[in-house]
Amino acid sequence: MNWPEIQLKLHRIGIDTYKENVAYLHLDCPVYRTEGFQALAKVEINSVDDHQQVLAVLNIVNDKNIMAIDELGLSEQAFEQLGLADGDMVCIAHALPPESLDAVHRKIAGERLHADDFLSIIRDVVENRYSRMEMSAFLVACSESGMEREELLYLTEAMVKTGEQLDWGEPLVADKHCIGGIPGNRTTMLVVPIVAAHGMLIPKTSSRAITSPAGTADTMQTLARVDLDLNKLREIVHRERGCLAWGGTARLAPADDILISVERPLSLDSPGQMVSSILSKKVAAGATHLLIDIPVGPTAKVRHMNDALRLRKLFEYVGDRLGLHLEVVITNGEQPIGRGIGPALEARDVIKVLENDPDAPSDLREKALRLAGRILEFDPDVRGGQGYATARDILESGRAMAKMQAIIAAQGMNTDPPKLGELVMEITAPESGFVTEINNLQMARIARMAGAPMDMGSGVDLLKKMGDQVEVGDTLYRIHAEFPSDFDFAVTLTRKDIGFRIGDKPPAPSYFPPL
Amino acid sequence: MNWPEIQLKLHRIGIDTYKENVAYLHLDCPVYRTEGFQALAKVEINSVDDHQQVLAVLNIVNDKNIMAIDELGLSEQAFEQLGLADGDMVCIAHALPPESLDAVHRKIAGERLHADDFLSIIRDVVENRYSRMEMSAFLVACSESGMEREELLYLTEAMVKTGEQLDWGEPLVADKHCIGGIPGNRTTMLVVPIVAAHGMLIPKTSSRAITSPAGTADTMQTLARVDLDLNKLREIVHRERGCLAWGGTARLAPADDILISVERPLSLDSPGQMVSSILSKKVAAGATHLLIDIPVGPTAKVRHMNDALRLRKLFEYVGDRLGLHLEVVITNGEQPIGRGIGPALEARDVIKVLENDPDAPSDLREKALRLAGRILEFDPDVRGGQGYATARDILESGRAMAKMQAIIAAQGMNTDPPKLGELVMEITAPESGFVTEINNLQMARIARMAGAPMDMGSGVDLLKKMGDQVEVGDTLYRIHAEFPSDFDFAVTLTRKDIGFRIGDKPPAPSYFPPL
Repeated sequence: MNWPEIQLKLHRIGIDTYKENVAYLHLDCPVYRTEGFQALAKVEINSVDDHQQVLAVLNIVNDKNIMAIDELGLSEQAFEQLGLADGDMVCIAHALPPESLDAVHRKIAGERLHADDFLSIIRDVVENRYSRMEMSAFLVACSESGMEREELLYLTEAMVKTGEQLDWGEPLVADKHCIGGIPGNRTTMLVVPIVAAHGMLIPKTSSRAITSPAGTADTMQTLARVDLDLNKLREIVHRERGCLAWGGTARLAPADDILISVERPLSLDSPGQMVSSILSKKVAAGATHLLIDIPVGPTAKVRHMNDALRLRKLFEYVGDRLGLHLEVVITNGEQPIGRGIGPALEARDVIKVLENDPDAPSDLREKALRLAGRILEFDPDVRGGQGYATARDILESGRAMAKMQAIIAAQGMNTDPPKLGELVMEITAPESGFVTEINNLQMARIARMAGAPMDMGSGVDLLKKMGDQVEVGDTLYRIHAEFPSDFDFAVTLTRKDIGFRIGDKPPAPSYFPPL
Repeated sequence: MNWPEIQLKLHRIGIDTYKENVAYLHLDCPVYRTEGFQALAKVEINSVDDHQQVLAVLNIVNDKNIMAIDELGLSEQAFEQLGLADGDMVCIAHALPPESLDAVHRKIAGERLHADDFLSIIRDVVENRYSRMEMSAFLVACSESGMEREELLYLTEAMVKTGEQLDWGEPLVADKHCIGGIPGNRTTMLVVPIVAAHGMLIPKTSSRAITSPAGTADTMQTLARVDLDLNKLREIVHRERGCLAWGGTARLAPADDILISVERPLSLDSPGQMVSSILSKKVAAGATHLLIDIPVGPTAKVRHMNDALRLRKLFEYVGDRLGLHLEVVITNGEQPIGRGIGPALEARDVIKVLENDPDAPSDLREKALRLAGRILEFDPDVRGGQGYATARDILESGRAMAKMQAIIAAQGMNTDPPKLGELVMEITAPESGFVTEINNLQMARIARMAGAPMDMGSGVDLLKKMGDQVEVGDTLYRIHAEFPSDFDFAVTLTRKDIGFRIGDKPPAPSYFPPL
């Protein structure tokens, strides 16, 4: 309902409330009193002609320096969504709860939802009709025990349908995705040039790091531009058969980003949420053939083989129904991959592998070849089992490096690559013996504390890996930082736990899978 | 973790964010960048000496009119909780998630929680360690299908333990509570004077209306002061054996108010949440004997007898374990009780009953006598079945009115009682026949739209009730409003649905219980 008789002047309030829209009314505003609004109530703001609308939660302001009595304030994102100018007249009304909330209540009550229900919920989410509280209710009702795998399929389809969908106009569009959690695991930047050099289409878009010390987009950014508009992206992919871009520009499965903004602070990470998040993005990005990497290890996201196998089945079920050609590999996630952790350090490792430098980290090289090989076998002309050798040929012949250089040139080379942070601390072995454990979580924390990914030259450089023999005082890793305060925080963190364990025997043979 | 080297100047921001604490940092504040804070991240603000702390979610400000770069802003409630002065130096750090969130995750995963788990969750909620999203996750995980009745007991106990608890120093402290949803149902203001006149202790504290057109506190306020501090309350109860006060001054089961601030916008109202909310408040308020009224009807909160019976069992289970003497009555909730809907109109009905006015609404009188009678039978000296007659004697003899006058005088008479709103609209019967339905929800909506409870003289005055015969054009009810805009809104609402149904036969005999 809209009461056009009461109009307020729109005022952009310089407050960033992230994915939650906030509207501000002055305590002495007559509308506040007569309408019985309450702080945190949900309101809808309409343009006078009723053509533009935005939903927001209400905060009440008691300071005329922030806004006047006859104004209606909107936080930054809400202001942009409404698309009016400062000073335009607007109306405010109580927002009706989103209609799809009824389906959420049925889910809370234990009912199974239909495809239509998921579509209406996700459409309302994308249109910002859900508060973070309401999304939290939906996600918890759907988590773990609460959802059948058919429902997961419906959810994923709804997430695809409510955004844009790319079409590359070819029958085989390859993609890969790792579920994450392993520092330094920058295989994508090797797999893409190898696969593209083979001629297979692999238009790879990646995210920036959110909780990790570097994402593929952060690392690639040390070498080239990654924020490309869709036309530019198409042109590059058309010419080079691949790209390494940031995926944030296209509106692919926009519900995913919104739901993640609630899942992350709540630490909700059920297998179902992971599957729908990854597969909706990939289908929206136009992938037809997809390789999923599930690292498993004691400090990885997935800690037991049984869980990895169950997750694989869920990926296969939803992927098959979505019409994807999907393969899942379960890999070793016992320790970081490569040496560097942090954008510039990881880019250094990648380039060494591409250059066939004898000093390149062999685990990163091996894992990338294995994954690239599996993707190459999507090609009907590559004989089963020959993918690995084909990938190795492409790498060793220098064709992967040439392709990477072409992609960098096409995206726009970074002419001012970051230097490694000049504040350096060496963390040494507290006793002699063998490295028996490297904790992925602690190494990621130290690298982040040192400034990664925001400070691109900051992070951790591993000199020892599991199984290496060390003498007391040998350097295990170096911390690089750009700013003194970050440096101190990272060093302080190592005093609690250096992230390495030294034993008197080499680690027992792993029961986890090979790379 | 706290980094004392970075200090900011505390600044009270005049924004009311209700039960959610918000901290504000300027975009250009160096702490924002180096610490990797994100909008909506949870932060802890500490005094320099580390003795005072408050938790909040972060908003990022990009306007120097709102706050300076070297300041840390806090919303009104957060500022008060921290208890420092404007300009004092403070430190900010990432807040660790509340430890009890681990138990919430176990609940989401389908585990049964222990008494300790509920205590740690509720303690963190009361200390404002939970965001609204996190509370939403907890409430959904605990709702309907998710909770065993033992867990409901633990939750209720935790809500009692984490607040103050009143002790009246007597073995029989009576209380009553209606689960709500029936407009005009102001029996409490009759039950209290009857029971207190009998000599039984009934220190009644009530809430103000939140979603209804009037709460007992709102209605009593038209006659007397209701915001009494605890000492004054004790003094009145000691002298008069009863009171009719607002319950917001004591810190009784404070978790309840916080959880309700999330349950209400989410429309979460599972039976478990209702039971824990009501019983925790009553036990904290020192009640030993409690009568619960569950109205049931097609537009009441509880719509089927089966649901009412199940709810009764849940009240009995938890109440018995808490050591309460608890009785539940299931009453007729097919239509509003009495005639007035809105504070002044409901007070008028109450006074008419107390005055034994022949024109007093007989349904309100009968229901109040029935409830008072049940409470009087808590007295071992009242013979089983004699409660009603005893209550009627007290009412008819004028002793109830005398007691009400004494309570009003003790609390402080309102010397300027509100007049009925002077803008009046009569809603008439669209056809001749019998009133077959009166919709509780629609009548409450119309009364609220007219301005109740904020405008105390506004509301709805019912002239016809179910079963009454009407001619076309007969007045069904009057709308009273104080302000023209409210008046228009209420009238507009009646054009969609007047809330009455007229049939050509009297309504069939009800299968719902009597009053």
